[in-house]
Amino acid sequence: MSVADNPFLNLAAAQIAGLRPYVPGKPISELERELGIVDPVKLASNENPLGCGEAARAAYRAEAAELGRYPDGGAFALRAAIAAHHAIAPEQITVGNGSNDVLDLVARVFLHPGRESLFSEHAFAVYPLATAAVGATARVAPARDHGHDLDAMGALVNERTGVVWIANPNNPTGTWVAAEPLRAFLSALPDHCMAVVDEAYFEYVGQDDYPDTSLWLDQFPNLIVTRTFAKVHGLAALRVGYGLSHPDVAELLNRVRHPFNVNAPAQAAAIAALGDQEHVARSVAHNRREMERVSAELTSLGLSYIPSVGNFVTVDLDRPAGPVDQALLREGVICRPVANYGLPTHLRISIGLETENDRMLAALARVLDRGSAVTPK
Amino acid sequence: MSVADNPFLNLAAAQIAGLRPYVPGKPISELERELGIVDPVKLASNENPLGCGEAARAAYRAEAAELGRYPDGGAFALRAAIAAHHAIAPEQITVGNGSNDVLDLVARVFLHPGRESLFSEHAFAVYPLATAAVGATARVAPARDHGHDLDAMGALVNERTGVVWIANPNNPTGTWVAAEPLRAFLSALPDHCMAVVDEAYFEYVGQDDYPDTSLWLDQFPNLIVTRTFAKVHGLAALRVGYGLSHPDVAELLNRVRHPFNVNAPAQAAAIAALGDQEHVARSVAHNRREMERVSAELTSLGLSYIPSVGNFVTVDLDRPAGPVDQALLREGVICRPVANYGLPTHLRISIGLETENDRMLAALARVLDRGSAVTPK
Repeated sequence: MSVADNPFLNLAAAQIAGLRPYVPGKPISELERELGIVDPVKLASNENPLGCGEAARAAYRAEAAELGRYPDGGAFALRAAIAAHHAIAPEQITVGNGSNDVLDLVARVFLHPGRESLFSEHAFAVYPLATAAVGATARVAPARDHGHDLDAMGALVNERTGVVWIANPNNPTGTWVAAEPLRAFLSALPDHCMAVVDEAYFEYVGQDDYPDTSLWLDQFPNLIVTRTFAKVHGLAALRVGYGLSHPDVAELLNRVRHPFNVNAPAQAAAIAALGDQEHVARSVAHNRREMERVSAELTSLGLSYIPSVGNFVTVDLDRPAGPVDQALLREGVICRPVANYGLPTHLRISIGLETENDRMLAALARVLDRGSAVTPK
Repeated sequence: MSVADNPFLNLAAAQIAGLRPYVPGKPISELERELGIVDPVKLASNENPLGCGEAARAAYRAEAAELGRYPDGGAFALRAAIAAHHAIAPEQITVGNGSNDVLDLVARVFLHPGRESLFSEHAFAVYPLATAAVGATARVAPARDHGHDLDAMGALVNERTGVVWIANPNNPTGTWVAAEPLRAFLSALPDHCMAVVDEAYFEYVGQDDYPDTSLWLDQFPNLIVTRTFAKVHGLAALRVGYGLSHPDVAELLNRVRHPFNVNAPAQAAAIAALGDQEHVARSVAHNRREMERVSAELTSLGLSYIPSVGNFVTVDLDRPAGPVDQALLREGVICRPVANYGLPTHLRISIGLETENDRMLAALARVLDRGSAVTPK
């Protein structure tokens, strides 16, 4: 959009012109009404189909009594709970209005015009957005097998690199990097470069050599690990995430953080969710079971997909995904096209409840006109 | 704090060094435990002592069923409700994680190093914070009778001025500017200068010549009006506010806004609160009644105060306020010292429930060793 279209761009900071105008989409409830969809299956946002656990819900409900009071700006109890969970100090924690908020804080502190922000092709969309919002330069490393190619990323590090972003596993590809190559990559990074390891889908990964980089903070002072309550904890509605880092790094991130960025019910529910590891285990077990089944069914439909360790699978439709997505929508199945990630023939499908996955698979077979043994329940 | 104290400042954007390190305070619950305070009176944050209305609470409770689902990133229903309330277009609205979020978005879009940010002495603390966070230059106009001196502010406008901030009424002074001088001020502003009129306490003001600047948007394309649900609506826990502006201005603010910045229960409760104008009227009536009574009692204690049209009163203790605040804390009365606003002998006291105000007045009389006819209930 040019100044001719929006004359206020003349008055804006230079980097604003490079940001995409935000076009708010219609919420699903509006789409349902317009398309006459009844009871759609929502597999578009990698949410936990089991929702949150009862402990988190009870903590949420209890906050109804105190909606008039400001949240604790220092998130004292939440940081204490996170610190205990990771056996680190509360001073190493930066809470965020979702982990996206933490990613944005990292960009605001460690990037600026003239510095470079390095991430992989097909990587999570917030990295380029946060980069553009502060006017830094994006450097994109080519992917290998749809996943992060750490060698290719390392080759792009230079004296201007401010932040390297690694999604492990990555959204929307579900790919992951193993402990040893990641450790080698971090060891080789120059001291002036911050490394963000985004572990939003951490809990879902079962691979033996998948690293828990929250245990590496002492070795890598430039490391920032992010986690979220939106995925396995089933609290996407509340927006809570956090960063783990060296205390000096957290101190800088907290200079830019809004003191009340995580609201009161979000803090309370997140504390309860951290204490409810049974719900995490139940959610992970459900995901593994259904991921295996959905993957097998996709194969039997003749479809290939990117092997995923997350709670979603990105399927190659071998044709432009947009029309397929629209056809699925009319069948009441909502998925996520990922053309904006450089994957125009892929569709990202979240793993839902068993009945939801059945409906998705049957609709996919109908839309692609392929036979399937699955019938909707 | 220098690089010697935090070596990561070397890697940070230049403006980060100028931000105060964030020192999270202990929450009130911890203070209560440490000081042995039972059932304290919280008059520190200008919250609505009646809390939120029942409609908002019911909307909040209903969200417990869907905590696993992401909020509507476009805040479609909330923007529709706000648009209807103000009889403007949804495209003129920018929702925020509290109105502070909107103020920060304004700074990120319209300020940058080299531009000036203009506000009044004693004005709301977020203006200088948002200014510093983007590396712009703060210009502070001297106050007149503790309130905004629009002539003094106008004299500081120059070709570098990016944003002028006017809190009406102002926190922490409770002062306000009338319609005609404000209209004259806005009319005289050059086109390159954005004007924010922060109306967080709008609903409390009863003065005939107090302006509703949301009605002026057509006349002043550079005007941004902010409102919040944290005050009269009693939803401080949930963090919801909004900005009203020309659609082109909103389009730029929304480029920087995080799509999910207002979480799901916050959106739902805010919609219900907007529809519950009875609760607003009840809250305003309570505030007027108690403001009048508290003001009279303060006068009978021999104390002067800044006349306030908000839901708080800032009292001149004629001595350093810190020790008085600490003594009140030990009496179980929590107020807000405002030395950081250039008011070292003042104490800001929110208007509470009748019984809370009685306890505050009695404690103040004891701490200052002045007679009072008020006895705690």
